[in-house]
Amino acid sequence: MSLTISIDAMGGDFGVDVTVPASLVCLRENPALTLILVGDETILNPLLTQDLPIYGERLVVQHASQTVDMDESPSKALKNKKDSSMRVAINLVRDGRADACVSAGNTGALMATARFVLKMLNGIDRPAIISTLPSIYGHTHMLDLGGNVDCTAEHLFQFAVMGNELVKAIDGIENPRVGLLNIGEEEVKGNEQVKATAKLLENSYLNYIGYVEGNSINAGNIKVDLIVCDGFVGNVSLKSIEGAAKMIATTLKEAFSKNWLTQFAAIVAYPVLKSFKNRIDPRLYNGASFLGLRGLVIKSHGGADVLAFKTAIKLAEVEVQHNVIQKITEQVEATLAQRVAS
Amino acid sequence: MSLTISIDAMGGDFGVDVTVPASLVCLRENPALTLILVGDETILNPLLTQDLPIYGERLVVQHASQTVDMDESPSKALKNKKDSSMRVAINLVRDGRADACVSAGNTGALMATARFVLKMLNGIDRPAIISTLPSIYGHTHMLDLGGNVDCTAEHLFQFAVMGNELVKAIDGIENPRVGLLNIGEEEVKGNEQVKATAKLLENSYLNYIGYVEGNSINAGNIKVDLIVCDGFVGNVSLKSIEGAAKMIATTLKEAFSKNWLTQFAAIVAYPVLKSFKNRIDPRLYNGASFLGLRGLVIKSHGGADVLAFKTAIKLAEVEVQHNVIQKITEQVEATLAQRVAS
Repeated sequence: MSLTISIDAMGGDFGVDVTVPASLVCLRENPALTLILVGDETILNPLLTQDLPIYGERLVVQHASQTVDMDESPSKALKNKKDSSMRVAINLVRDGRADACVSAGNTGALMATARFVLKMLNGIDRPAIISTLPSIYGHTHMLDLGGNVDCTAEHLFQFAVMGNELVKAIDGIENPRVGLLNIGEEEVKGNEQVKATAKLLENSYLNYIGYVEGNSINAGNIKVDLIVCDGFVGNVSLKSIEGAAKMIATTLKEAFSKNWLTQFAAIVAYPVLKSFKNRIDPRLYNGASFLGLRGLVIKSHGGADVLAFKTAIKLAEVEVQHNVIQKITEQVEATLAQRVAS
Repeated sequence: MSLTISIDAMGGDFGVDVTVPASLVCLRENPALTLILVGDETILNPLLTQDLPIYGERLVVQHASQTVDMDESPSKALKNKKDSSMRVAINLVRDGRADACVSAGNTGALMATARFVLKMLNGIDRPAIISTLPSIYGHTHMLDLGGNVDCTAEHLFQFAVMGNELVKAIDGIENPRVGLLNIGEEEVKGNEQVKATAKLLENSYLNYIGYVEGNSINAGNIKVDLIVCDGFVGNVSLKSIEGAAKMIATTLKEAFSKNWLTQFAAIVAYPVLKSFKNRIDPRLYNGASFLGLRGLVIKSHGGADVLAFKTAIKLAEVEVQHNVIQKITEQVEATLAQRVAS
């Protein structure tokens, strides 16, 4: 099976310094993979002189004359950057030349461009962003992390339907355990939005396990495969976790660098600390998928390094191989037809 | 200055096993402190036979025949448990016999009872719960954590006014830096509730520094003294942080207990790991204050151990000594009078 992914080579805080080496690692590791690196060819070609002959048709440079800035407004990017590496990379997905696109560019511009170029699925009101987070049970998927604020119950239900297909496909689970993020597990708890969403989920085909609390993302009492929430709560929650992890890492580092005794302890404990770090390394969870579009777009963290960006490309590979977009499209059509009929 | 605190001795997951020893530690450490332990005297008196003579008038047992269960509904507790240790402890605050009350009992029942017995301040629509969280800058205060869902901008503004007085009083800061929790720092970001609240804060006397993101709770780019959010987002965020911390602790423990080599490393690193743990030990941050009532009630975590419950009592001592309730009352009256006049 052929597998072609377009890479917004100029996107992210580090641009080609990260996207190019990460792309080359992926090409080396997966012989079935073709990558189209989109960006300024006067920058890309010299960087790839050695590699272009090695990978032949599997490594393509597609010129794009513009770059979307990391702080550029989505509307300006959409209007003024029609030949940006981001836009051209997405165009390749629309035109069927690539199966997916990966970008570390600015989220707002990427979402606006993807939405404009690829169009949304019938029956979906808003695209959502889903990501994987580590948990004591392995991992959990969560959406929306894309800043969809003021969501209705119907929006949240749509997110659940799409997320469920993604989890089924890439985790190979028949009936993912779907939880709704709330402030308590009891039925009376929560705001109006959550209570109305719970009703929709209860009466659906989904394996809805009920309300879950914030701690369920990383370490709840039971495993949850998919956590549904609105984009405001999802974003705050994700960033809160990032802050907690950063504080704990900082504190741990400080404790080990206090004096020569603690530094000695750090040397002895180094292999343990390293294996610990690897287990929860956020770079191994990099890559968020846009759901609800007629094509696959994966957003990498803007500050991704080579390992992190490679993780995002690998995620795109997995989602293409498992036909995630097609499965979501079919399910959305089936489920919404059913809902209209009922 | 005399300082009397009533303790709901039967509350929490461990009841007198935790509340009694924690109370005795506090009495030993602060000679100005008087504690009224409220609960079943047939249980309390035998536990205190040695201590009652030692502390004399500083240690009082107040009988209460009932106990509120940890999962009891607030309305049932309010209706059927008029002689509960929780209710009687709060009554003591209302009657001026205690300056504050500390309970590890169930949050809903405690809030409902406190609200019913103590009454709310004029100008406050909903009581809020504020707590202190560790941050790389020391600590941050955050409210509402009490599950006030579907808040209006006016509610959030009231929370900010109350929280600001608490932070000023107990941290001794003249102009606390007040941030509003949002999904981005740019003006265009956020839901309608947040945008409307931002306007109220901008036009107020508060030292409003703008939007802050979830990572600002523990480890933002700048120090924030007070973070304001609605009770849904606050609760999810707090629990998300708890989950992240638990996952990291679990992973660290697993890494150090893998085999004899890692166990040896753990022994060498033990003092470091202990100092690290002490720095972010949640027990040292136990105790959340109810704001908006005509009296001081501190909620301890239900699962608090002796150290954690002691921390909650100490928080009550600090807030009484700094006249937190009086300062909030004065500010609420002044600010709301001003708002009505404008």
